[in-house]
Amino acid sequence: MIIAQVIGHVWATKKERTLTGVKLMVVKAEESGEAFVAGDVVGAGVGEQVLVCQGSTARRALGGDSVAVDAAIVGIIDTLEVERAKAKH
Amino acid sequence: MIIAQVIGHVWATKKERTLTGVKLMVVKAEESGEAFVAGDVVGAGVGEQVLVCQGSTARRALGGDSVAVDAAIVGIIDTLEVERAKAKH
Amino acid sequence: MIIAQVIGHVWATKKERTLTGVKLMVVKAEESGEAFVAGDVVGAGVGEQVLVCQGSTARRALGGDSVAVDAAIVGIIDTLEVERAKAKH
Amino acid sequence: MIIAQVIGHVWATKKERTLTGVKLMVVKAEESGEAFVAGDVVGAGVGEQVLVCQGSTARRALGGDSVAVDAAIVGIIDTLEVERAKAKH
Amino acid sequence: MIIAQVIGHVWATKKERTLTGVKLMVVKAEESGEAFVAGDVVGAGVGEQVLVCQGSTARRALGGDSVAVDAAIVGIIDTLEVERAKAKH
Repeated sequence: MIIAQVIGHVWATKKERTLTGVKLMVVKAEESGEAFVAGDVVGAGVGEQVLVCQGSTARRALGGDSVAVDAAIVGIIDTLEVERAKAKH
Repeated sequence: MIIAQVIGHVWATKKERTLTGVKLMVVKAEESGEAFVAGDVVGAGVGEQVLVCQGSTARRALGGDSVAVDAAIVGIIDTLEVERAKAKH
Repeated sequence: MIIAQVIGHVWATKKERTLTGVKLMVVKAEESGEAFVAGDVVGAGVGEQVLVCQGSTARRALGGDSVAVDAAIVGIIDTLEVERAKAKH
Repeated sequence: MIIAQVIGHVWATKKERTLTGVKLMVVKAEESGEAFVAGDVVGAGVGEQVLVCQGSTARRALGGDSVAVDAAIVGIIDTLEVERAKAKH
Repeated sequence: MIIAQVIGHVWATKKERTLTGVKLMVVKAEESGEAFVAGDVVGAGVGEQVLVCQGSTARRALGGDSVAVDAAIVGIIDTLEVERAKAKH
């Protein structure tokens, strides 16, 4: 999973039918800085630091393997403990 | 899903048989600027801002899990609300 | 799918058994310029502009979900119509 | 799989229910330098050099194909033997 | 599939149980220059130019869809014939 920040919402009236009722949020990956859209399953809000999973796992996280989603917010991060010294490259 | 703009069409007479009848559009990812081809399931037109999903999810969005497609337009974006201040890196 | 050009062939005598009989071609992605190997299901030739799908979709395009292939040429492009003005970033 | 170093932990109280009990660690890919979060199945500790697999394989490594994880630590590296001369590009 | 060169081995005593008996080799992608670890199913040796497939296809190439591997060496390249003129970008 990647660590991202929720930065917004997106609305689409015309959409694939399995997306009905899915809360779509704009997230920004902390490492790459890239923004993309993820379905939310944990009630995340703008500004929160979250865990985002991608690919077929995201589809399953949204329930039932048939939702047209390839990224999902699966956790709201409470604590992130990283040993920066160990992270030296 | 990524946010992209529809920028064109592509036609192929010789193609894998499951692609028959699939509307193939050229989309340009807003973040990376990269262009690629996606099957359309929502009736998107050139110039529209859309949601594109990729991988096995795209195949399923086009119905039946057997279509030879790895990217699909699954929504036409009405509103995109991003808090740029929150997006600071 | 990505738009690529067929630039060559690759032969492997020692290979995973499901690759027997699969025509393996070297393709070059038009956007990234990256070259890789794809199985061909449409009879593409060197120099042709093609559609390449990747991941589990490629495996399925080659028939039966068990072929050891993660990229497949699934269409030969006849016409590519892109509105460059719309493509401005 | 990629070679990575374990550099930290992440805790999330609000999370997708299948993540309950999964040990989530922050890993840093040695090649790209990118940090991300992986579920641990081998009891890895901070500072260890590990093998990380991604995608649907990660989900399966955590057992049962339903866990909301797209990266997993699947091995702790004892020995890495690379012929740097052969690695010249 | 990508074209890579086998540049080494990796050993892990503590590993996910499905990796037992899998020969893990370090490969270097020719295009990107990136090194990663792949399971070998064709008896490749250090210095050989090989075909590597990734994702769920790799898992299946190693037999049975349950092996914790996301990259596999599936062919040893005999001949690579690329028309460099056609490859101009």
